Parts: sequence; structure tokens; C-alpha cells
Amino acid sequence: MTTNKAFLLDSRPGERPAGPHNFRLVETPLPTPDEGQALVRHLWLSLDPYMRGRMNEAKSYAEPQKLGEPMIGGTVGEVVESRLPGYAPGDLVLGMGGWQLYSLAGRGHLHKLDPRIAPPEAWLGPLGMPGVTAWVGLHEIIEPQAGETIVVSAATGAVGSVAAQLARRAGAHVIGIAGGPEKCAFAVETLGADACVDHRAPDFSERLKAATPRGVDGIFENVGGEPLEAALTRCNPFARIAICGLVATGYDGTKAALRNFGVTLAMRLKIQGFIVSDDMSLWPQAQAELTRLHATGALHWRKTVAEGLEAAPEAFFAMLKGGNFGKQLVKLR
Amino acid sequence: MTTNKAFLLDSRPGERPAGPHNFRLVETPLPTPDEGQALVRHLWLSLDPYMRGRMNEAKSYAEPQKLGEPMIGGTVGEVVESRLPGYAPGDLVLGMGGWQLYSLAGRGHLHKLDPRIAPPEAWLGPLGMPGVTAWVGLHEIIEPQAGETIVVSAATGAVGSVAAQLARRAGAHVIGIAGGPEKCAFAVETLGADACVDHRAPDFSERLKAATPRGVDGIFENVGGEPLEAALTRCNPFARIAICGLVATGYDGTKAALRNFGVTLAMRLKIQGFIVSDDMSLWPQAQAELTRLHATGALHWRKTVAEGLEAAPEAFFAMLKGGNFGKQLVKLR
Repeated sequence: MTTNKAFLLDSRPGERPAGPHNFRLVETPLPTPDEGQALVRHLWLSLDPYMRGRMNEAKSYAEPQKLGEPMIGGTVGEVVESRLPGYAPGDLVLGMGGWQLYSLAGRGHLHKLDPRIAPPEAWLGPLGMPGVTAWVGLHEIIEPQAGETIVVSAATGAVGSVAAQLARRAGAHVIGIAGGPEKCAFAVETLGADACVDHRAPDFSERLKAATPRGVDGIFENVGGEPLEAALTRCNPFARIAICGLVATGYDGTKAALRNFGVTLAMRLKIQGFIVSDDMSLWPQAQAELTRLHATGALHWRKTVAEGLEAAPEAFFAMLKGGNFGKQLVKLR
Repeated sequence: MTTNKAFLLDSRPGERPAGPHNFRLVETPLPTPDEGQALVRHLWLSLDPYMRGRMNEAKSYAEPQKLGEPMIGGTVGEVVESRLPGYAPGDLVLGMGGWQLYSLAGRGHLHKLDPRIAPPEAWLGPLGMPGVTAWVGLHEIIEPQAGETIVVSAATGAVGSVAAQLARRAGAHVIGIAGGPEKCAFAVETLGADACVDHRAPDFSERLKAATPRGVDGIFENVGGEPLEAALTRCNPFARIAICGLVATGYDGTKAALRNFGVTLAMRLKIQGFIVSDDMSLWPQAQAELTRLHATGALHWRKTVAEGLEAAPEAFFAMLKGGNFGKQLVKLR
């Protein structure tokens, strides 16, 4: 193959809801690296909820994705041609290569990976950005204490599954929230949650109440919406709520609202939004811990794999609706 | 006078909105102190927004006010009869005597005041609970840095006026929010706010935007509602929002909702509710600083005085609607 394929962001969601029609697949000649660059052939593409926000015009915590350019995305790949000192063909590298088969990258934009530590795609999941996200939200905001009750939404997802396991290791009671019995079973049996409540259950609030007899001391929130409202009503004084994602509410132009805001005062809650890239100084410690856990077999995760670049758009929008089970990846080779 | 007069909480707000009809004035014989008690004749009664929450049945951060008992309230008074060692007739004392002319109090429930430091009623305002509330929210949650922009709602109120002055002293730009030109003028001319925006202005949001050209780094929130929504849209990344009161939204059975919740994630806000009594260990430092400022004439405040116990209910509900200008007090003698 001597050409690259890429999905460009072709249009922004507007009156028509976001969907695969917002992307355009293009085929372009394979680029050649300039001095200081390496050409990387991608093995795996990561699909993550933050990408939905980048499709919008409005600036959120990052600049919007530019139209007509390859959609942003984390990738693991191998160097095929290098004019970047220290990088040689065959090197396994983590980067932000985007929704495409190949990318060029310069110094500071590639991280060499040791293939003996973990399968390459793990660096897009529990050992990479999603795992560090879980670590930061849990340890920097929630700071769970032994015996406390911590609720984790999207508990089997790329971030939630790590958050649930880390909270458990901190000695907390962990109550997962997930969609459907299969995910809930995984949360309890594999991730070690003390209970998992299916947010699709019509009596979700009652079930959550029954699962949290001593109230809730922390919430790792990936979703927002009604499950969050219900969890807030269970909060004990001084509970900490880490807002990692509001996928249920905030990405489609509708603003994410909170009905139960008064509880913030009544229970003296701390509600804090965070983005894992805000403090890169936390990454080494987080990744060291996650890698150590992984090495001992104590870090479990699931993945949902879409095959081939062409499958990326459908897989992405399915993921936003919870259609994935664990980390959503696209296998490019 | 040999009798006591007291306002009891007679009924809770229900279908009929809260109002003076919820209180009942009773006259009772003057009590006599038991061993370990002092009888205090109140000079001043403090009226504070938290009292509205106590009228409700539902537990918030404190137990509800019991029906048929004198309404809770901070008081400054003088000891008239004492069987409490260390307290003698004529001593000026701060306590929680409630909405009545006299009260009995035991050890730990009275604090002797030095009449040379400040007029007695100042201990119900900037040197007492409201002042310490401002100090705690500002220094423990917002932590203003020099050059940052801090918004203070109810900026001329008992708490807000102190918060505005402390933020100014920390080197922050202070933007007050208050109701009407007279209060706004006081916020700027006397409290030292850089600007004050009248929340009654139909173009409030535009005015707030114009007053915060560099965005907002902290909000000291006493009110909630639309001004808070507007201030949130002005927040810079990592802004801190101290939720001290939600008087506009949360006390009438309607839950306080937040429309602009998504900004919590987009701007990585920290939103934290607090109650000044949660950490009494902070009081000595706070009161020492406030007293020092007061001594140098650098701590300004306004008061609105209702004359006589009978005026308390009307004054209280007027205050909840912003009818006061500064600290709302009832002068009992």
C-alpha cells in the first residue's frame, strides 16, 4: 500500500444531529518525513468521547477540530521510515496520529513503547490516557478513604473500569453504574465492584439507594444525566464528585443541566471538572502504578474492536450511545 | 419587665408560602438560671438567610427548627443574673439566644465580648459568623490570587461585603453583584469593588461580561439563580466557586437547579458548598484577622436595623427578598 487513508471532519453537527455523515474518507499519497520526523503506520486507533466535543464549533476545553483535516485521535503504530533521531523502523510508538492509516510526527509527539510490557492497544486504554484519567480523577479529586462508598458511572468503560478498580484497591466500597446485566456482571465479577446498578432499570433510583445504605462519599462521573441526579441525592456531607465526562447531556448542543444543585450546599459537596491533560506532571506516577498493576494481572479491562478504518465513524457513534463494552478501539492492521 | 417574649416557629411553610404567619409571639415568665447557667438579656438579634432553611421539615445541613420552640438566632446580650462561674451581671456576651428577649445559657454556649473592640452588634456581622463565613469561603475554597477576577454576589450583604473586601485585599479584581444603584455605589465606593453590576438590570449578562474582560477566576455565591448562571459563563479554566448560599432558588421547596452545569467540565471548575460551622478550627485565625482589620478602620459594613422583637418576622422575609442593605439586625433594647 502506498497511499494513506484518512477521515476528515467534513462538517459540524448542526440542525442535523452528529453522525457518520460529518466525516469524509479521503485517500492521499503517502507522505515522506522531513528532517526530524518519522512516518508511522498505525496499528490501533482509539475512539474516545472527547472527540464528540471537538466536532462542535464552540470552544470547550480545547480548540475545535478543524474542518478538512484528519479527525484527532490517539494511535499506536510502528515507525516505517524515520528521519527522527532515536526512532527506527519497527519501533512501537504511541501518538496522536488521528483517524488515518499513517501519520508524520516529530519529536515530542511520539512515545516509544516497550512491547514486552503489554499488548500495544493497552496504551490506548488502561495504561494510557483513559487509565491516567481514572487515576487523576480518583486520587486528585475524590481521594477515597477506606470504607467510603464510591459510585462510578460507565463502570465498565475505558475510564470507569480503571476508576472502579483503583477505588476498590483504596479500600472503598464501589458501586458501579452500567447499562445492562452483562456489563453489571463484569463490573462485579471482574472489576471487583461491590454492586452494580443498571441505569436502564425503571427503578434505578431505588436500586441505587438500596446499594448505598451508608450513602455516597464520592462519584466518578463519566455520563451525567439522571443517574448522576440520583447519585447526588445519596451523597453524604463532604462528598467529592469528579466530573470526567457528561456524555449523556453535554455534547449535542444541549447544555448539561443539573437539577439537584441545591445538594451542593446542603451536603457541602465538592464538584470538580477535570481533564487529564491539564497536569502532565501526574502522568509518570499514574502510569507507573497502572503498569505495575497490569504486570501483576490485577488490572482488568475489556475492549470492543471495530475492524478497519472504514468502521471508525459507526463505531464512534455507537460508543457515544453505550454500544461498546469496555475500551472502544479500531484495529487498523 | 419581668416577662420574656419569644417568637416560636408555629408552622412550617407548605402550600402557603413562608411568611410571618409561620411564627407566633408568646409571653412567658422570666426564667431563672440553674447552677451553671446565666440569664442573658438580648441587645441585638441577628437575622440570617440560613434560618429560612431551618423552617423546612427536610433536613438540610442541620436539623430543622423544632415547632413550638423559640426560633434559632444569634444574639448579643448582657448577663443579668449568673450562676455560671466566670460570668457576672453586666458582662457582654455572644450566644445563640434565639428570637426572644431573654435566654438561659450554660458553659460553652456564651462567648464573652470585649466592648472596647467594637460595637456589640459587630459580633453578629463582620466580626462574627457572617465575617468568618466570608473568610472561610474566600480563603479555603476560592484562594484568590493577585490579579484574578472574583465575583461576589449579594456584595453589600453581611457576608458578601466582607468577602469583597478580603478579596480586594488579596489583590484580586472584585466585581460585585447587588440589587440597585445605591448598593452598587456602596460596593464600589466603600467596599472597594472594581465594579458592581445590578442584577435587576435587564441587560445584566452583558454588563457582567463588560465588567469581566479577563473572565472570572472565582465566584463567592450567596444567591444563586440567573446571576450565577451568567457568572459561570464568564469563568476561566480552573475557576473556583464557593457556594455559601442559594437564597434565590433553594429555600422554597423548589430545588436549586443549575442550567450551565456543562461548564464545570469544559472549564474544569471546582464548585464547593460550605457551612462556616463545619470547621470551627478556622474561626480563631479568621476572627483575629477580621478584628485586626476592624481596628484599623479597614473593614466597612452596613446594617439595616429593625426596631423591637415584634419587627423580626417582617424584617426577616424582607431580607430574603433583598430588602435589607447590609447586615440585618433586630435591636431589642
